[in-house]
Amino acid sequence: MQDTVKRFKAHLAKMHAYSHAMGVLYYDSETAMPKGGVEGLGATIGVMSEESYRLSTAPELKEMLRTLNENKDALDMVTRREAEEMAEELSRMEKIPMEEFVAYQVAQNEAGNVWRQAKVNNDFAAFAPHLEKLIGYQRKFAGYIHPEMKAYDALLDQYEKGLTMETLDAYFKNVREKLVPLIHAIAERGRKIDTSFLDKEFAVEKQKQLSDHIMKVMCIDRSFCAIGETEHPFTTNFNKRDVRITTHYYPESLLSSFYSVVHEGGHATYELNTGDDLFGSPLGGGASMGIHESQSRFFENIIGRSREFIGLVYPKLMELFPEELKGVTEEMLYLAANRSEPSLIRTEADELTYSLHIMVRYELEKQLIGGTLTVKELPEKWNALYKEYLGVDVPDDSRGVLQDTHWSGGMFGYFPSYSIGSAYASQIYDAMMKEMDVPALVKEGKLQPVIDWLTEKIYRFGCLKKPGELIENACGAAFDPGYYTDYLKEKYSAIYGL
Amino acid sequence: MQDTVKRFKAHLAKMHAYSHAMGVLYYDSETAMPKGGVEGLGATIGVMSEESYRLSTAPELKEMLRTLNENKDALDMVTRREAEEMAEELSRMEKIPMEEFVAYQVAQNEAGNVWRQAKVNNDFAAFAPHLEKLIGYQRKFAGYIHPEMKAYDALLDQYEKGLTMETLDAYFKNVREKLVPLIHAIAERGRKIDTSFLDKEFAVEKQKQLSDHIMKVMCIDRSFCAIGETEHPFTTNFNKRDVRITTHYYPESLLSSFYSVVHEGGHATYELNTGDDLFGSPLGGGASMGIHESQSRFFENIIGRSREFIGLVYPKLMELFPEELKGVTEEMLYLAANRSEPSLIRTEADELTYSLHIMVRYELEKQLIGGTLTVKELPEKWNALYKEYLGVDVPDDSRGVLQDTHWSGGMFGYFPSYSIGSAYASQIYDAMMKEMDVPALVKEGKLQPVIDWLTEKIYRFGCLKKPGELIENACGAAFDPGYYTDYLKEKYSAIYGL
Repeated sequence: MQDTVKRFKAHLAKMHAYSHAMGVLYYDSETAMPKGGVEGLGATIGVMSEESYRLSTAPELKEMLRTLNENKDALDMVTRREAEEMAEELSRMEKIPMEEFVAYQVAQNEAGNVWRQAKVNNDFAAFAPHLEKLIGYQRKFAGYIHPEMKAYDALLDQYEKGLTMETLDAYFKNVREKLVPLIHAIAERGRKIDTSFLDKEFAVEKQKQLSDHIMKVMCIDRSFCAIGETEHPFTTNFNKRDVRITTHYYPESLLSSFYSVVHEGGHATYELNTGDDLFGSPLGGGASMGIHESQSRFFENIIGRSREFIGLVYPKLMELFPEELKGVTEEMLYLAANRSEPSLIRTEADELTYSLHIMVRYELEKQLIGGTLTVKELPEKWNALYKEYLGVDVPDDSRGVLQDTHWSGGMFGYFPSYSIGSAYASQIYDAMMKEMDVPALVKEGKLQPVIDWLTEKIYRFGCLKKPGELIENACGAAFDPGYYTDYLKEKYSAIYGL
Repeated sequence: MQDTVKRFKAHLAKMHAYSHAMGVLYYDSETAMPKGGVEGLGATIGVMSEESYRLSTAPELKEMLRTLNENKDALDMVTRREAEEMAEELSRMEKIPMEEFVAYQVAQNEAGNVWRQAKVNNDFAAFAPHLEKLIGYQRKFAGYIHPEMKAYDALLDQYEKGLTMETLDAYFKNVREKLVPLIHAIAERGRKIDTSFLDKEFAVEKQKQLSDHIMKVMCIDRSFCAIGETEHPFTTNFNKRDVRITTHYYPESLLSSFYSVVHEGGHATYELNTGDDLFGSPLGGGASMGIHESQSRFFENIIGRSREFIGLVYPKLMELFPEELKGVTEEMLYLAANRSEPSLIRTEADELTYSLHIMVRYELEKQLIGGTLTVKELPEKWNALYKEYLGVDVPDDSRGVLQDTHWSGGMFGYFPSYSIGSAYASQIYDAMMKEMDVPALVKEGKLQPVIDWLTEKIYRFGCLKKPGELIENACGAAFDPGYYTDYLKEKYSAIYGL
């Protein structure tokens, strides 16, 4: 047994090396590579992923996993979970016939290329047959992997273990009932928040200094976390001592990079505080998309858009931009950072309306995978839901059903985790508030106790616990979507004087 | 045969992927990685280099090489040279017993760590036993690989194929006889070139714009070449469509990054213009250290420090730094860029005195490997040669014999290629001038004909030709060190009014 454990760990380390190398190749391609590098990169990624695939399906790994899983009780917790996870992953890969998987990869690649063009040309008809194909594959794969589940539940489970339509139906019902009327009431109230004082040029060099300051305020040790620049901000990590966040600096938008850094900083904080015992393990990293998003949105919205946080960074803002922000008060900034307005594009949505964008996608995905909606009917249905929930008219498919990349990559079941993350965050915040006065701590610039609490309840476990267990562990209760809508209702009623 | 060629090319492509991945990991670690990433990086590089080693010594490769080299005449030129190169490399690796190679790697790693500390502590005695060990290994390895050669000739051959002590003795004799008196004469002449007008702060953002401008002037297509920032500037390339140069911006030194970009831009120009038929091949890249250095120094010194080039970039300099450079003329800049002063540190040496720093190292290496100088005697001998050639007193070993990293990495025979590169450049320049008026072209900002000439004579061949063949091809004659000293004598006599 000891020998098997040793060989297993060596195998994991090797797999980790390939994912590390591919991660760096990807990060480099987004941040540093000249665009001509794409051809050579493709060839190299091809060789690396082939070897990585070979390792994760190797007969010797299968044999090790059999031995380990037959002797579970003799294993420490980390090794046991590693063996479970790997066996699950392996069985998932084996359930899909190789030829179908390869054919799917080709279809996915084609769909991606067609979608990019279709978005530019506002040409949903060109994309439709590809989307149909991908939906067909995803339904089939769901059946292979979890024949006992409904297809869409099986897809949801991939991204957020244990998440089902039952949970999401209740969740979005609550969102619909509480937030749609609130958003309509705000629209009727007609109060406009002034943000014109931010229509200035904010020097990128100064914005970079602001990023450094935010990282310091968030207690992020820069020895383990770098900031890069990319078109779309993201976070990636190769291990807990090498985390990278990226941002995009727009001279004309001070708040864009500011909140990107706070958001990605939240993702980074999670990764940086996973347990040392998980270093280099496949369990060393966030538990799920939803839990990850809960942390980025906790820092971005609940902390970062609070009066106290604005007050905390206000002096630095005034120091960096004394001319640009002359006469701007903390309250003016607070309101500007929390302006809510129904819009067309998900990635630009504010805290309040964001989940309605997700709800549109959830309802459509559920029906597409469930077979009660055809691809042909999709754009019309999309536009109708945007009108119903957000009150906006979709002028064209480019700014409608073609806006996101996810479906063209076959990612069905991914969107809900974006919204569920915000809901987790509110419930976690409520539990945290029972033990400490978070706004008072933020006001004093003491974020470390908040991070320590989250580390104790969530971060240190990496992937050892499932999303549901982590919520129970942090909140002492199962997931309850009410916290989220209560939080938003209270906050936005105050801001808009309802 | 066709089947063997196909398998051989696939094997090369795989090897290339690993070196690409390791190259990006290295580049990323120097430019982007937070310092905490070093632990995880070590593990990943370990896995990658193990696999890379396995590939380059694989029995199937050996068998392919046997078939290919037995049927040379049936192969196209590129494949033939690839098979020759790989077979040579393989035989080199096989000649060193594995245990000794591993022991050497350990010794080298230790020596590197001790040297870093010894340099900080000015403690040559701590480093000496490690240096002795490395010299012992290198002598032994030289004997294994080329038992028919003198040990130091075998080491020189590693970095510059065909370069021998015989050539270098003649080369440095000329350098010593021509340049040492010139440098002494300049010192006696006592003329001081004023550079005090550069003692200003030059905003890094503006320096970055200057880098972009220099790249444009050098006709470098940025789709294939990126600029990064590192402590020590370097150039690396993953293929001819993904070349990276780096620089270091010092606000207080305008010329530092300026000439780093021109120098590294020269290396990049070489890589970017290798033949398309060598894309992804082990032959796709510079032919040798010396030829590579000839190109960086050609652009940095012969072109970049010419009156015409200064005139060419002068308007941009004045546009970027109108206040800082108020009243500064082209002539003042030209003189400042060409000030010569004997100094202690090789990496900071000027064009004229640089080769004397190399000559010190050459003479010491030759004797250390040849067995006529002991490690114990080394510092004293170092200091004596600095006094003799450069007229400077070495105050301590940190600024003397401990200054360079090369010996701590076991790199004996590497230094001469730095100097020989400058000498190649002068001879190449002379040949080029017979066909076009280079200063006139530079004055008009037309560098493309210069690059085209170099591409035709040198760049396109990658590693297809050996250094000596490339010089013959470009100059129509064998290497002749006289061009170099003539060039320097003429240039510096004029500048210093001798």
